Amino acid sequence: MTKKTAEDFAKQQKEISISEFFEKNKHLLGFDNPTKALLMAVKEAVDNSLDACEEAEILPDITVKIKNLKEDVYKVSIQDNGPGIVKEQVPRIFGKLLYGSKFHRLRQSRGQQGIGISAVLLYSQLTTGNPTRVLSRTDEKKKSQMFELLIDTKKNEPQIVKQEETDDGIPGTGIRVEMDILGRYRKSQGVDDYLKQTSISNPFAKIIYHAPDGEKMTFPRSVNELPVPPKEIKIHPYGVEFGILQRFLTETSSRTLQSFLVNEFSSIGQQTAKEICSMAKLEPNMKPPELERGGIEKLLGAMQKAKVQRPPLDCLSPIGEKELERSLKKEYPEAEFITTLTRSPEVYRGNPFQIEVGIIYGGNMKTDEPIEIIRLANRVPLLYQAGACATTEAAKDTDWKRYGLQQSGSNLPSGPMILVIHMCSAWVPFISESKEAIAPYPDIVKEMKLAMQDAGRNLSRYLSGKRRAGEAKRRIQIFERYSGEVASSIALLTKKPEKEIEKKLKSMISQRTHIKDDEEDKTE
Amino acid sequence: MTKKTAEDFAKQQKEISISEFFEKNKHLLGFDNPTKALLMAVKEAVDNSLDACEEAEILPDITVKIKNLKEDVYKVSIQDNGPGIVKEQVPRIFGKLLYGSKFHRLRQSRGQQGIGISAVLLYSQLTTGNPTRVLSRTDEKKKSQMFELLIDTKKNEPQIVKQEETDDGIPGTGIRVEMDILGRYRKSQGVDDYLKQTSISNPFAKIIYHAPDGEKMTFPRSVNELPVPPKEIKIHPYGVEFGILQRFLTETSSRTLQSFLVNEFSSIGQQTAKEICSMAKLEPNMKPPELERGGIEKLLGAMQKAKVQRPPLDCLSPIGEKELERSLKKEYPEAEFITTLTRSPEVYRGNPFQIEVGIIYGGNMKTDEPIEIIRLANRVPLLYQAGACATTEAAKDTDWKRYGLQQSGSNLPSGPMILVIHMCSAWVPFISESKEAIAPYPDIVKEMKLAMQDAGRNLSRYLSGKRRAGEAKRRIQIFERYSGEVASSIALLTKKPEKEIEKKLKSMISQRTHIKDDEEDKTE
Repeated sequence: MTKKTAEDFAKQQKEISISEFFEKNKHLLGFDNPTKALLMAVKEAVDNSLDACEEAEILPDITVKIKNLKEDVYKVSIQDNGPGIVKEQVPRIFGKLLYGSKFHRLRQSRGQQGIGISAVLLYSQLTTGNPTRVLSRTDEKKKSQMFELLIDTKKNEPQIVKQEETDDGIPGTGIRVEMDILGRYRKSQGVDDYLKQTSISNPFAKIIYHAPDGEKMTFPRSVNELPVPPKEIKIHPYGVEFGILQRFLTETSSRTLQSFLVNEFSSIGQQTAKEICSMAKLEPNMKPPELERGGIEKLLGAMQKAKVQRPPLDCLSPIGEKELERSLKKEYPEAEFITTLTRSPEVYRGNPFQIEVGIIYGGNMKTDEPIEIIRLANRVPLLYQAGACATTEAAKDTDWKRYGLQQSGSNLPSGPMILVIHMCSAWVPFISESKEAIAPYPDIVKEMKLAMQDAGRNLSRYLSGKRRAGEAKRRIQIFERYSGEVASSIALLTKKPEKEIEKKLKSMISQRTHIKDDEEDKTE
Repeated sequence: MTKKTAEDFAKQQKEISISEFFEKNKHLLGFDNPTKALLMAVKEAVDNSLDACEEAEILPDITVKIKNLKEDVYKVSIQDNGPGIVKEQVPRIFGKLLYGSKFHRLRQSRGQQGIGISAVLLYSQLTTGNPTRVLSRTDEKKKSQMFELLIDTKKNEPQIVKQEETDDGIPGTGIRVEMDILGRYRKSQGVDDYLKQTSISNPFAKIIYHAPDGEKMTFPRSVNELPVPPKEIKIHPYGVEFGILQRFLTETSSRTLQSFLVNEFSSIGQQTAKEICSMAKLEPNMKPPELERGGIEKLLGAMQKAKVQRPPLDCLSPIGEKELERSLKKEYPEAEFITTLTRSPEVYRGNPFQIEVGIIYGGNMKTDEPIEIIRLANRVPLLYQAGACATTEAAKDTDWKRYGLQQSGSNLPSGPMILVIHMCSAWVPFISESKEAIAPYPDIVKEMKLAMQDAGRNLSRYLSGKRRAGEAKRRIQIFERYSGEVASSIALLTKKPEKEIEKKLKSMISQRTHIKDDEEDKTE
C-alpha cells in the first residue's frame, strides 16, 4: 500500500446537503428516540399552525389526531384553521430544510429556523418511507390542494409524489398535515403535556386532541381575543458584530452614513446618528460602501459606546398576567393559590426579551418532592433538557426558603408547587436546533431570578397569611375547649343565661386572636 | 391594516443558507463566548492536521501560535507537516460549510461533519472582518499556494480575496492556517488544556505551542509509531433504517438482492444473505430496485432479526493500553499510581465502538475535591458540557466507594485522582455540532461503566496494598519503639552482644508483620 497524497484526498472531498447532514444527525433535531419523535412531529406542526393563525389574526382551532397503525408506527394528523399556504410554496415549506419566512426577520415567533416541519418529514421518510400528505386551502371558495411529499436528501429539495385538487375535508381555510412515523406514545413528558402547556401559554387557542389510546381531550379557549401582534424590529446597535456591520454597509440603499445608521438599526435617530459619526470621527455625509476596515472598526466602537435608547419593546408579545392567571385557573382548578406576573422587558446582547412567571400552589400536589417547572419560550413548551436550561439554573439559584419552601443547597426547592416561566423574544438563544432549552446567558438568568423573587414574595405573603390563620385557629380551639366550662361557671355566678355568655366569650376570643395577629405583623 | 393572507406570507418565504444559519446560531458550533471561540479555532485546525497526518501516514509535527493583537483580538496560527491540500480544494474546504471527505464514509476520524474549520472562518470574519490566510504545500519541490479567504454567507461559497504562489515558510509539505478572531485567553479549560490532553491521546504527535502570554511549551512524542490506520466500514444491518435501505436499493449496482446484501452491508456473507432473503420470503435473484414498500419492510425486518456477525472491528483505532500509560506517565510524572486499560469493542445501533480508561492517582492532587475527568472522543479532548456527557453519567453511576474513594449519593467521587475516558467509533453520537459531549445512549454508558469498574479494581488493589503496607509499618514502629529496651535486657541475661540481639529482633518483627499481612489477605 502506497501512502496517500493530497491528490488522493482531493477525490474524496464532497459537498454535504443539509438534509443528509440532519438525516445522519437527527438526534440534534430532537429525534433521539421514538417517544420524543412523536412529540416533535406534533410540536412542529402545532407551532407552525399557531404562528400562522396569529399572524393572519385568526383565533386558532387546532385538531391533533394520533393513531397507532401497527407496533411502533403512528399516523399523526394536525389540522388548523389558518390562512393556508399558496400552492407554489407548499412543497418547499414542507420538503426543504432551511426554508421559511421567519429566519430573515427579527420578530417574535414560535418558529425561527426554517428547519422544524421539514425535519419531521425527513424523519418520517427515514423511518417509514411513506410520503407526507399536506392539504392546503387558502380560499373557502376554492378546493384544497393536496400534495404527497418526500425530500430528496441529496439535493435538499422536495419531491412531489402526487398532487391534486380535492374536496377532502378542510372547512374554510387552513392546513392539514398527515404523516406516518416511527414513534412511541406515553402519557407524560410527551404530546399530552405539550398540548396542555400549549393551551396554558396560548389561552386564545382551542385545541382538540384525539390521543392514540382513544381518549379525546378538549382544551378550550380561556380568552377570546388574540394578543397584540408583535412588531418586526431592526437590529440594535449594541448587538451588532463587525461582519454584520460590514455587510450592511455594502448592501444598504442609504446614501449617507448618517441615514444608514437611522435606517438600518433600531433606536437611532438623526441626533444619535450624528453623535456616533462624530465619536467615530467619520463624515456623516460619506457614502456607506466607501468605509474601509479602519473606519468600520471606529464606527462599530462608536455604535457600542454611544448612548442609544433601548430597542422598541412592541416586538414582544407576552402571555399577560391576567391571561396567564386565567389559563392556570382553568387547568389547575384544584390549586390553593395562583399568582402570575409579567416583568418589564429587558435586553440581552441588543435583543429585547421579557420574562413572565406563574406559581401554582397546593391542591393535590405532593409536598415532599421537588417542584415541577413548566418552561415556555415564545409560548412554546420546552419538555426536554431541563438541566441545561436557563430556567432551571434560575430556579436553583433562587433562595426559596425565604418564600416558605424547603430547599437544600443548590437543588430545586421541594413543595406542592408548579413554577411556570416564560421567556419571549425576537431571538431566543436555544442550546440546540431541537429548541429544548434556553442558553443560560447571565442577563437572562438574572432577569428570570428577579421574576421568581417577585412571584416568591407573593407566595410568601399567601403562605404566612395561611400560617397565621392556622395559628389563630389553633388558639381559638384551645380557648373554645374551655369556654363551655367558663361560661357555665360565670352563668352560675352572674345568673345570666349560659348560652349568651358562651357566645360572647367566643366572639371575644375570635377578636382577641385577630388583634394578636396584627400585633405580630408589626413586630415581624 | 388588512389581515394577512396566504399570498402575503408567500412573499416572505426564502431559502436560508447554512452559513447564514450558523452565523446567527454560532453558539451551536461552540462559539458562545470569546474564551471558547479561541479554543475552537485551535481545536478545529489541530484536529484536521492530525487526521490528515494520520491518514497520510506521517508522524505529526504541529506548531500552534497565538498572539494577542489588541484588546480581545488574537492572531491564531496552526502549521502541520501533513500532505497539504491540492490548490483547487483549498477554498472549499476552508470556505464552505458542509464540505469535506469525512461525512460520506464510515471511518474513525476526528472530524466527521465537514463544518469545523469553515465555521472558524465564519466566526473570524464575523468578529474581525479579516480574511483567513491558508498556505498549502503538497510537494517539497514546488512552492506553497497561498489563499486569503472569506465566506460568502448568502451562497455558502468561498470568496477568494487573494491567491498567489509563495516561498513563505512551509518546510516539506503541509498546511498553515492564520486567522484573526475575537477571543479571550485563559490558562484553564482552554487551549492549554486542549493541547496537553491532545498530546495524551495522540502520543505519536509532537506539538509545539507558543501561548499568548509568551510561554513556549513542547509536548514531545511518547511513542514513535503511528497507530494502525482504522479501516473504512460499511453500515451494519442492525443499524439500518427504512429510508436508508430504500435508497440503497435504488442506488446499488448489484444485480440481485442477495449480492446487494453482501456488497452494501458489513458482516453479511452469501449464506447469511440467503437466510435473510428466505426469512423475508423474497427471491434472492430479484433485482433490488424492483422491491416495493411491503417487500422493503419484510427485508428490513429480516435484516434486523437474522443472526448477523458483529461488524468488523478493524475500523477502530484505540490509543492502546501501553501507549496511554506512557502518555500519562510523561504528563503526570509525579503521580503515585497509573493504570490504563482498553476494553474489547462493543456495538451500539450497529456501530462498533471501544472504550479505554486510565486512572492517575495521588501525587500533588487535592484529596477532598471531586475527581477530574479527561474526556476523549476519537482522540479529541472534550472540554465543555461535561454535565451532559455519557462519560460523566457513567462516572457518577459507578460505585467508587468499592474502589477506595469517597462518594456521596450520585455525585462524582472525591479523591486525588484523574479519570481518563476515551471512546472511539466510526460514528460518535455527539449532542451538538460543537462536539462537546457524547450522547448518553444506554449501550455506551454501560460499556463505560464496565471499563471504569475494571480500572477501579486495579486502583483498589493498589490502595489496599498501600493501606496494608501502612499498617505493617505502624506495627513495626510500635515493636521497634520497645526493641532497644528488650534487647538490652536480653543482653544482660544472656551476656550476648546487645547490637546483635537488636538486629535479630528487628528482622523477626519485620518477618512476623509480613506473615500477619498474608494471613489477613486470606481471611479477607
